[in-house]
Amino acid sequence: MPTLDALNAAPLDVFVAALDGVFEHAPWVAAKAAAGRPFPTVAALHDALMAQVRTASAETLVAFLCGHPELSPKVLADPGLTAASRDEQGGLGLDSLGDDLRRFEDCNAEYRAKFGFPFIVCVRRLTPPFVQRAMGRRLASTPETERETAIAEIGYISRLRLKDRVEGPGMPKTDGHLSTHVLDTARGCPAAGVRIELFREGAQIAEGRTNRDGRTEAPLIEGEPLRIGRYELRFHVADYFANWPAAADPPWYDIIPIRFAIAEPEGHYHTPLLLGAWTYTTYRGS
Amino acid sequence: MPTLDALNAAPLDVFVAALDGVFEHAPWVAAKAAAGRPFPTVAALHDALMAQVRTASAETLVAFLCGHPELSPKVLADPGLTAASRDEQGGLGLDSLGDDLRRFEDCNAEYRAKFGFPFIVCVRRLTPPFVQRAMGRRLASTPETERETAIAEIGYISRLRLKDRVEGPGMPKTDGHLSTHVLDTARGCPAAGVRIELFREGAQIAEGRTNRDGRTEAPLIEGEPLRIGRYELRFHVADYFANWPAAADPPWYDIIPIRFAIAEPEGHYHTPLLLGAWTYTTYRGS
Amino acid sequence: MPTLDALNAAPLDVFVAALDGVFEHAPWVAAKAAAGRPFPTVAALHDALMAQVRTASAETLVAFLCGHPELSPKVLADPGLTAASRDEQGGLGLDSLGDDLRRFEDCNAEYRAKFGFPFIVCVRRLTPPFVQRAMGRRLASTPETERETAIAEIGYISRLRLKDRVEGPGMPKTDGHLSTHVLDTARGCPAAGVRIELFREGAQIAEGRTNRDGRTEAPLIEGEPLRIGRYELRFHVADYFANWPAAADPPWYDIIPIRFAIAEPEGHYHTPLLLGAWTYTTYRGS
Amino acid sequence: MPTLDALNAAPLDVFVAALDGVFEHAPWVAAKAAAGRPFPTVAALHDALMAQVRTASAETLVAFLCGHPELSPKVLADPGLTAASRDEQGGLGLDSLGDDLRRFEDCNAEYRAKFGFPFIVCVRRLTPPFVQRAMGRRLASTPETERETAIAEIGYISRLRLKDRVEGPGMPKTDGHLSTHVLDTARGCPAAGVRIELFREGAQIAEGRTNRDGRTEAPLIEGEPLRIGRYELRFHVADYFANWPAAADPPWYDIIPIRFAIAEPEGHYHTPLLLGAWTYTTYRGS
Repeated sequence: MPTLDALNAAPLDVFVAALDGVFEHAPWVAAKAAAGRPFPTVAALHDALMAQVRTASAETLVAFLCGHPELSPKVLADPGLTAASRDEQGGLGLDSLGDDLRRFEDCNAEYRAKFGFPFIVCVRRLTPPFVQRAMGRRLASTPETERETAIAEIGYISRLRLKDRVEGPGMPKTDGHLSTHVLDTARGCPAAGVRIELFREGAQIAEGRTNRDGRTEAPLIEGEPLRIGRYELRFHVADYFANWPAAADPPWYDIIPIRFAIAEPEGHYHTPLLLGAWTYTTYRGS
Repeated sequence: MPTLDALNAAPLDVFVAALDGVFEHAPWVAAKAAAGRPFPTVAALHDALMAQVRTASAETLVAFLCGHPELSPKVLADPGLTAASRDEQGGLGLDSLGDDLRRFEDCNAEYRAKFGFPFIVCVRRLTPPFVQRAMGRRLASTPETERETAIAEIGYISRLRLKDRVEGPGMPKTDGHLSTHVLDTARGCPAAGVRIELFREGAQIAEGRTNRDGRTEAPLIEGEPLRIGRYELRFHVADYFANWPAAADPPWYDIIPIRFAIAEPEGHYHTPLLLGAWTYTTYRGS
Repeated sequence: MPTLDALNAAPLDVFVAALDGVFEHAPWVAAKAAAGRPFPTVAALHDALMAQVRTASAETLVAFLCGHPELSPKVLADPGLTAASRDEQGGLGLDSLGDDLRRFEDCNAEYRAKFGFPFIVCVRRLTPPFVQRAMGRRLASTPETERETAIAEIGYISRLRLKDRVEGPGMPKTDGHLSTHVLDTARGCPAAGVRIELFREGAQIAEGRTNRDGRTEAPLIEGEPLRIGRYELRFHVADYFANWPAAADPPWYDIIPIRFAIAEPEGHYHTPLLLGAWTYTTYRGS
Repeated sequence: MPTLDALNAAPLDVFVAALDGVFEHAPWVAAKAAAGRPFPTVAALHDALMAQVRTASAETLVAFLCGHPELSPKVLADPGLTAASRDEQGGLGLDSLGDDLRRFEDCNAEYRAKFGFPFIVCVRRLTPPFVQRAMGRRLASTPETERETAIAEIGYISRLRLKDRVEGPGMPKTDGHLSTHVLDTARGCPAAGVRIELFREGAQIAEGRTNRDGRTEAPLIEGEPLRIGRYELRFHVADYFANWPAAADPPWYDIIPIRFAIAEPEGHYHTPLLLGAWTYTTYRGS
């Protein structure tokens, strides 16, 4: 992976080649931004690239937008699909939509007919149900707003791709953070040894066990965007208060589920559990 | 105490005499309202009396307002003060204002000079600091608004006096309600035997002990307006979690103070305590 | 349905016939208890009946216990099954155990071989998984303890049957109570209009909506034992904090699930939800 | 201040002189421990010093204990008092005990008469009321236990003095930590700008304001033992929820007091406030 320093010093064609695919089929973006070198940070490089997109002529922009693949399992068969797009769409799970898929593809067609370019969304920032929800809302939008939204989504997409292509200081902020913490409010100490599962849209995506500080060894999610969607933490506490005075059999709580939704993929989310023998509290912490 | 039925059937002079003093030095209010008899409820009788006040000519109204005593310890020495006013002002504790009293009397004079009638407030609905606060706000008001406010206060005053003068169905709503409840969330049951004190503006006004349901035998305040003001509940829990696993010495909590302010004298206030060994929660309940 | 007074005054054969089936194939229980009439309460009648069971000779007792049907879908086909047993077992859902059913029937055989009488349990007080759990525990028990346990279960069974057969004062306590309450701690008032579902062992058994007091119009369960088992309340709050300052899109909470287990079928359970915009608390209330 | 390395290498008399006063009038402690040099950590040095105290003959020990000053304002006038003792006792505020002081001095006499040495306690670890409480408990103790307790207290005293006398790695643990944190559970973010006061036994000892993370810039207490005693945090929130939907006038909460007691002077205490508009929760956090 080239460093930012190397890119700042590279001949134009090397610079453009290094950024190939950060923007879909659009080497002109890097070519035009190159004149602004040197960039002090990767974020500044990204800003300069996006400035080229934003100031492109209407004709160039629409051509550029039209160079993006449709969001559809079908495109995975297209040999012209960029590797980045293939990876991103492959992880989305659109093929799991079942009956909804046909409806989604109808929406794709309707969207292109209405706006003149394909529906573009940064799929690494949303779960499939929220991609569908976004489609519904954006179909109801205006052409001006949709052009802005498409450019903003390309900003998210290219920011994530750039991080995989350049090494250097001042990386753009793309990561979210999700963690939890279990406090035993009956004993006045962290609750150790509680098994925790994290589900996203019904599928388990992480698990762990609280340590002596009542925390999992690592955050439940970090180093990537938190996909906008519905999550559920499940705290397995059936045995935690065994041998407790006045503990019931079966215990009052066995699994404590906490459902919540992520709205900001780059946000910092902390969802603690204050656990008593016959009560619990949760909140958005910090 | 006469019944509403008796008043509905009484000769005019008996009716007027029975309500003497409900409105300060103003037998004409009852005399004019008498024509609307029979009244199905005491509240309807009160509405009819207030309708006479509201529809009085500007001249009559100002004379009526001027018939009200000033809010001042000095008026307690005036033999012409009605017994009701004497009782109400005596209970207010204005004489405890100390240095603030002179400032308050200056405000009284300023108020009368600005609006042409004395400052009227239903002192059974506020603590002295909030009488002072009301004075400050009302001095900044307009003559129209102040006339409305004075009439509204006379509505509160007369409503309370009427309840002491007539027996019958449909009493006007003048009472507030303040209660508490202690739940032991470490054992999953009501917390019995907890001593509770209630303070208002720093003075203890009630105390009790929780029974097997975690409640005091009677509400802390009922049967009267809750005075707008600052309150504090103190829950004596030092011994409650003695012999508890992991209890500390001295115990983590000894007295749990909960401060709150009453804003609606006729409101229903419930301030529970969810008590764990190392946590507590309070909220406005219902 | 005969009254207790009528039974107190009835000829012996009428008394015995009226209680036929309260104890399985054992008219002698009622016949012997009849001498203790008149009974002041239905609970006293039940106590007298159980006293006959408890003081029966070992031989009589074992014969009596052996007169009870096995807990098995197969017995539903037996025309000799009492109507009460048919109803009770039919509602249990043993046939839904699937693969576990064969294992359960093996346990039945093992139990009878070990203790000399069938496994008896008051199925109206447990969900099928907890019937299975009870089987596992009781298989590990001693003959003396198991005879006591079987008699205690017959006490529960007959108490419930008696309530359906006699009208009168002093009914034995057989009912549990499960209710909830939603308080909006962000607005300081009951939370109205929240849809609530109650699930037991995964199946929805009740639903409701909170009224202006934040309660459902009726308790979620009353008038019957609460079956020992696992329950889940689901509070549908997705729209509750829409238009709230700083509300997120999608909202932080959409459905709030609260899982808990009932351990006392005749207990009083209250599981409130204190609902803020970004927090919630639950506890066993009273 | 000498370093541990320097002390490890110093001639015996320099070593003893450097530690003069860490143990009251007892240079023999350092002299005997010197043979164990070099010490890898300051804590190891302290352990070696205490080992000399623990293994001293009964006669030497009692003489050593008797070399400690009485806990009394009178000793402040004694020119023979060590500077360390003067500082420690001066900060205790024993002279503020008023009428209790005479009773305390009577206890001092009783203690010396019963055990043969003065009452020794590490006054930097307790507030005056808890020094008094300790006196009451220890008067009821046995000679063996009291000798152990006196040695343990000398361990606490000398550990603190040693930290002021030697620089080096592996300092003994003498510091406590007290912090707080305010979360706004109505908005789902840290509560910034809340003024906080900390009181100990009724006297304000710290104050601060929450920053954008809902924390004070520094812990409320750190770098010293937390004195065993009663504390109160006061959160000034009167204006925090002004302009809030359904905010009351006056606001429901103005000052939120949280009282708690510290039992472990070297402990880590965190007492957060989860603040909603009409609710709050506190707990011992971590």
